[in-house]
Formats: sequence, C-alpha cells, structure tokens
Amino acid sequence: MNTPPQTTDDRSGGGHSGLRSALALAGWLLACFAAAAMGGLFMPGEWYAALRKPAWNPPAWVFGPVWTALYTMMAVAAWLVWRRGGFAAQRRALALFLVQLALNAAWTPLFFGLRRPGLAFAEILLFWLALAATLLAFRPVSRGAAWLLAPYLAWVSFAAVLNFTLWRLNP
Amino acid sequence: MNTPPQTTDDRSGGGHSGLRSALALAGWLLACFAAAAMGGLFMPGEWYAALRKPAWNPPAWVFGPVWTALYTMMAVAAWLVWRRGGFAAQRRALALFLVQLALNAAWTPLFFGLRRPGLAFAEILLFWLALAATLLAFRPVSRGAAWLLAPYLAWVSFAAVLNFTLWRLNP
Repeated sequence: MNTPPQTTDDRSGGGHSGLRSALALAGWLLACFAAAAMGGLFMPGEWYAALRKPAWNPPAWVFGPVWTALYTMMAVAAWLVWRRGGFAAQRRALALFLVQLALNAAWTPLFFGLRRPGLAFAEILLFWLALAATLLAFRPVSRGAAWLLAPYLAWVSFAAVLNFTLWRLNP
Repeated sequence: MNTPPQTTDDRSGGGHSGLRSALALAGWLLACFAAAAMGGLFMPGEWYAALRKPAWNPPAWVFGPVWTALYTMMAVAAWLVWRRGGFAAQRRALALFLVQLALNAAWTPLFFGLRRPGLAFAEILLFWLALAATLLAFRPVSRGAAWLLAPYLAWVSFAAVLNFTLWRLNP
C-alpha cells in the first residue's frame, strides 16, 4: 500500500532519464496551460454578469486560483502516468487524458464565446465522462495520479451542475 | 469586390498596432501548432499499418506536409478575423474557431490513442460541423479567411470518409 512503485521505472535510465523526466513534466504543464489559455481569451464580462444566478454561485475571484491549482495537479498526474513507460506503455490512459483536456478546452468558447449554455452543458457531460474514464484508467497505474484528478472531477461535477442551473435560469 | 477592407482596421493604430498584430499572428500560430502537437504524440505505428485500408488510402508521408500547411493557413485565417476588432468584435467567429481547434485536437487521441475508429468518426462529424460553422462565420468578416479554411474543410471531409471506411473495413 505504501510502496511507491512508480519510482523504479524512473531510476532505470539514470541521470539522462532524470533530465528527460523533468522536460516531460514541463511538457505536460505546457500542454495543460495551453488548454487553460483558451479560458483566458473569453473573460466573463457584462453578459455573464447579467445572467440570473443561483444563490450558491461562487464569487468570480474563486475560478482563477481553483483552475490554476487544477491544471497544475492534472499535469503532474499525467506526468506520473507517463513515467510508467511513456506513450508506448500508457497509450490508452494518456489518450483519455488528452481527450478530456481537449474537451475541457472546448467548453469555454462554447459557454463564454458563443454564449450557448445549453450547448456547453451537452459538451460538459461528454467532458465529464472522458475525465471520469481518465481517472479510472490512471488508478491502476498510479494511485497518486488518480487522487490528483479527484478534486478536478469534483470541480467539473460542480461546474456541470452550475452550467445546467445557469441554462435553466436564463432561457 | 477587389477592395481589401481588412487593411483599414490595421492602420488605425499605427506602429504599435503593427507589433501587436505580429504578436497576435505568432499567438494564433502557437495555438494551432499546440493542437497539432497532439497529433505527433500518437504516431501511426503497427496497429495502423495492420488495418485493412481502401485502395485510395493516401501514403503515410502525405499527412505531415498537408497538416503543416493546413495548420498554418487556419492560423492566418483566425488572425485575419481577429484583426477586425479582436475578441470583442469577433467573439462568435473566434469562439467557433477555437471549438473546432479543440475538436481537431481530440480526434488523434481517439483514433490513434484509444484506437477507436467508431468513436473517432462520431467525433469527426461534430468537428466537421464546428469547422463548417467557423468558415460560414468567417466569410462575412474576411473572404480571404474563409478561403484559407476551404482546403482544411475539404481535407477534413476526406478524412471523415477515410475514418468511416477504416471503421467499416476493420470491425
């Protein structure tokens, strides 16, 4: 239970593997923050401010720090899985991760760009499914990676409920 | 017909606007090639080589140069639209562009990563719709931008037919 099996893989290559591993972590962080940058292009402006919102709608300042933490954690999770043999060995799990990342990136332009909460809600359901499948695929490879995705899945579940509520409140 | 209305917008800001415009072009190229990089992670290997293919299947070396040209053209197209007032003025058209880019990025991990041609075909239909909507949204803003997307739409149409055929030939 407490043994960290993921370290054995990393040691095999020695110093060269250490550099490659650090570059890979940078690559995963870059990929995740490139997806995050899509969110920054469509700032919640007057349109969002004017929407009817539920009483439990979080204040706007919450989203920035929360997403920064979630993108960092998901990059580390993908990196932990990647360390167990790269794309060759973890093809399915890492493919699912990239699918959920792309669906994550598509949500902001749908909701804040096109201002189509209904379409965005349909999309977030697919995104949620891809993310849940990713977490389940990460679990047997690295427990730590699966745990790092847990707050992300919880937040996307909350975001889906919020998206649905905003859609119903603003027909 | 022959007047280039898009240049007037660019002139308004003088030299400062020129630098900003060049940086924006670099930004659009970066965004498109970040999405392209997803394709590079899943190389068509033994699995793809072993698939039954139609006689009209293009040779593997075609895809690299074609996609490089298409990603460059789509970045220039988005930039031409962005120049007409940025995200504030072209919110809908640029949102559609980013949705199609995210759906483009999701296709490779579905097909080559998960090796699910059926799922990838369902996804490419949504991608095709988002791309066609983007072309139609670009058209009134910049004819040049719409034309730059035309080969991309043609290629994705062909890719969808190829995807469907590969799915049916390899049940």
